[in-house]
Amino acid sequence: MVGSVRGEDWLRQDVNSTPGVRQPEVNARMPPVLALNVGSSTVKFGVFEAARGHLAPVLRGRIESNGAGRRLVSQDAAGGVLSETPWVAGGDDATSDLLRWVEARLAGPVAAVGHRVVHGGPDFSQAVAASEPVLESLEALAPLAPLHQQQGLAGVRALRKACPDLPQVLTFDTAFHGGHEPVADRLGLPRLWEARGLRRYGFHGLSYESVAGQLAMLDPSMAEGRVVAAHLGSGASLCALRNGRSIDTTMGATPLDGLVMGTRCGSLDPGVVLYLQQAGGLDAAGLVDLLYRRSGLLGVSGLSGDMRVLLESDSPAAREAVDLFVYRAAREVAALAGSLEGLDGLVFTAGIGENSPRIRAETCARLAWLGVELDPAANRRGSGRLSPVGAPVTVRMIRTDEERVIARHTSRLLGLDR
Amino acid sequence: MVGSVRGEDWLRQDVNSTPGVRQPEVNARMPPVLALNVGSSTVKFGVFEAARGHLAPVLRGRIESNGAGRRLVSQDAAGGVLSETPWVAGGDDATSDLLRWVEARLAGPVAAVGHRVVHGGPDFSQAVAASEPVLESLEALAPLAPLHQQQGLAGVRALRKACPDLPQVLTFDTAFHGGHEPVADRLGLPRLWEARGLRRYGFHGLSYESVAGQLAMLDPSMAEGRVVAAHLGSGASLCALRNGRSIDTTMGATPLDGLVMGTRCGSLDPGVVLYLQQAGGLDAAGLVDLLYRRSGLLGVSGLSGDMRVLLESDSPAAREAVDLFVYRAAREVAALAGSLEGLDGLVFTAGIGENSPRIRAETCARLAWLGVELDPAANRRGSGRLSPVGAPVTVRMIRTDEERVIARHTSRLLGLDR
Repeated sequence: MVGSVRGEDWLRQDVNSTPGVRQPEVNARMPPVLALNVGSSTVKFGVFEAARGHLAPVLRGRIESNGAGRRLVSQDAAGGVLSETPWVAGGDDATSDLLRWVEARLAGPVAAVGHRVVHGGPDFSQAVAASEPVLESLEALAPLAPLHQQQGLAGVRALRKACPDLPQVLTFDTAFHGGHEPVADRLGLPRLWEARGLRRYGFHGLSYESVAGQLAMLDPSMAEGRVVAAHLGSGASLCALRNGRSIDTTMGATPLDGLVMGTRCGSLDPGVVLYLQQAGGLDAAGLVDLLYRRSGLLGVSGLSGDMRVLLESDSPAAREAVDLFVYRAAREVAALAGSLEGLDGLVFTAGIGENSPRIRAETCARLAWLGVELDPAANRRGSGRLSPVGAPVTVRMIRTDEERVIARHTSRLLGLDR
Repeated sequence: MVGSVRGEDWLRQDVNSTPGVRQPEVNARMPPVLALNVGSSTVKFGVFEAARGHLAPVLRGRIESNGAGRRLVSQDAAGGVLSETPWVAGGDDATSDLLRWVEARLAGPVAAVGHRVVHGGPDFSQAVAASEPVLESLEALAPLAPLHQQQGLAGVRALRKACPDLPQVLTFDTAFHGGHEPVADRLGLPRLWEARGLRRYGFHGLSYESVAGQLAMLDPSMAEGRVVAAHLGSGASLCALRNGRSIDTTMGATPLDGLVMGTRCGSLDPGVVLYLQQAGGLDAAGLVDLLYRRSGLLGVSGLSGDMRVLLESDSPAAREAVDLFVYRAAREVAALAGSLEGLDGLVFTAGIGENSPRIRAETCARLAWLGVELDPAANRRGSGRLSPVGAPVTVRMIRTDEERVIARHTSRLLGLDR
């Protein structure tokens, strides 16, 4: 796990080079696509070569924060670590810096950049090329995702400025849920507000698209059934999939709804929001800060929003936070089984879902009445099918790959995958 | 259905008689207890004689509003209509006027008055005698039930002023849910707010206590199982009962949460409340008005908050409001089956639950996957067991009797039932 001297040196030398000047194509093959995934706790990226409808990963990486600051970890296509380097870029130039780092690593340019955008609102139900009117329209949705929308779009704007000729494509976390029946997305509000765009949208759609696609390859008969996918990460939600398509989900108009999350409250009695505003004396900014940044696992435990920390802790409040996470997750799996009118399969994905046998076991234990069973050894290994053969509900862990979905939409939209 | 001349005349003559002077006892038996139930859409009352642990109803009634104004309808113990009279009393004196009407009708005084109070907060988990400190403590909970709490307590205060020697007992819609596991009531907020009393409480507890008590008599084996009781009225919620005790419910810290109601939104993404406040420009009073009074069936249909009106309407928006009501109710029955880890029984109660075979049928149709079946003829009749013999889940309709529960707590607390 040594630092990539070449990548770092290149960054130091070229970070101030003239913006907008594209590198010449150095490969005979089509240059690859860079997929950028700015999430609530990390930045992840993937570089994919597209040809004849297939995508081949050539480089992956993530920027993480820990006690010692931020670092960029890169991996090859097989998941082997290529480099771990301190990462000091920040602000509006961070995305340009990352692009330069990637192009240096590749020793060549990328053909396009695809971005994850959290909210597509009522107008964007599929990937779209970045343009000024599109960005303005998406920025207007910021009140529906105050911590997430600007974060993603700022990088797009910075890159448009730095590299105006570089094609950029926006992909949406809401888009996968676009086929819901209206009743699943309707809020109990006057129609005036529906006309203004207030309805349930759902999020983590790029992740669910990844999981549904992998499931269709791995286990076609399970994929055709009634499946709940559990994206349990720093942000967390559930998706009800019927025949691979989303029919309901736990997040609503904003990424605040549904399950208890790392620092977000999840579903909350609207009367409590009124109480916090009126009797609690919180103003608008105070409410956003409380409900998005100080609640969830962090608020209940008083310790951390990181499930790994809570699972290692002896604190009773940490245990209570974990219990609440599991209770609410299991209760909502049952609610989505209601939307699906039954349950054939359950898939765990994202940070907690992929890596915590204990959270999987505790959640499944509460779902035994629905026919959910785990094979303890398979659950500990955390690979493939986690339920015993013949169990009424098939349980799986699938590693989500949002970057591949971003890259696929990007290369398709631009015709790079022919 | 003729007006009760005697009752009306008495009211006209004596409505201004000296307050606080109690009528002499005219019966050798213990004077009866008056139970007052000031609900979100009606005022109901019941008069019960208490002896040796039993309560016998002697008079019932309700004050209703219709296009022609308000009227008081009274009934005998068997449900036969005794009188229908215009009812012009209002304001703080309405409760005193009703007491005088009842005492005239009885030709004698009542021993005590029991009240339904919506919110007991963290401090009141059982019936309590009205006193100044108790009333002040309960009035402080008004921000958690802005439209309901003051409404109930104003009558108590007016009666204490008019009849200072009359014992008054307060019974709470939250109390029946007091035995929940903490995880079922915990919100995903920092503990600071839990310490200030913010947790899920649940409501309609007097109704669920009535239903659970009747079920234990009617069908003891069903009552011992995992039962969801559906209180579907102008306000609506579900309660998960295990062995007759509440273990979870759909309403939260306030009566705004959970199912879609007549004019209340039910569960709503907390991010939407932030949006309404910030992008929507609604102030605190505007939010309360929108979410409590203009949302729910009324808001979605644009027509009415009364399910009877919607079911008779040809409007597509009315149909969509009904569909949303059913979709959310069925989804939440499944969520509570998750809390119960299975489902043995389903009980419909309150205005819609008791009187709408169509809503029962549409809700049960969405729950067939859980083993819920209806016998169509029994559902149309709406009496007794509504599911076919041998169905995995027993479905019943039970008429709720909150007034009897109020009277029982009142007579017990005061030792009138010995």
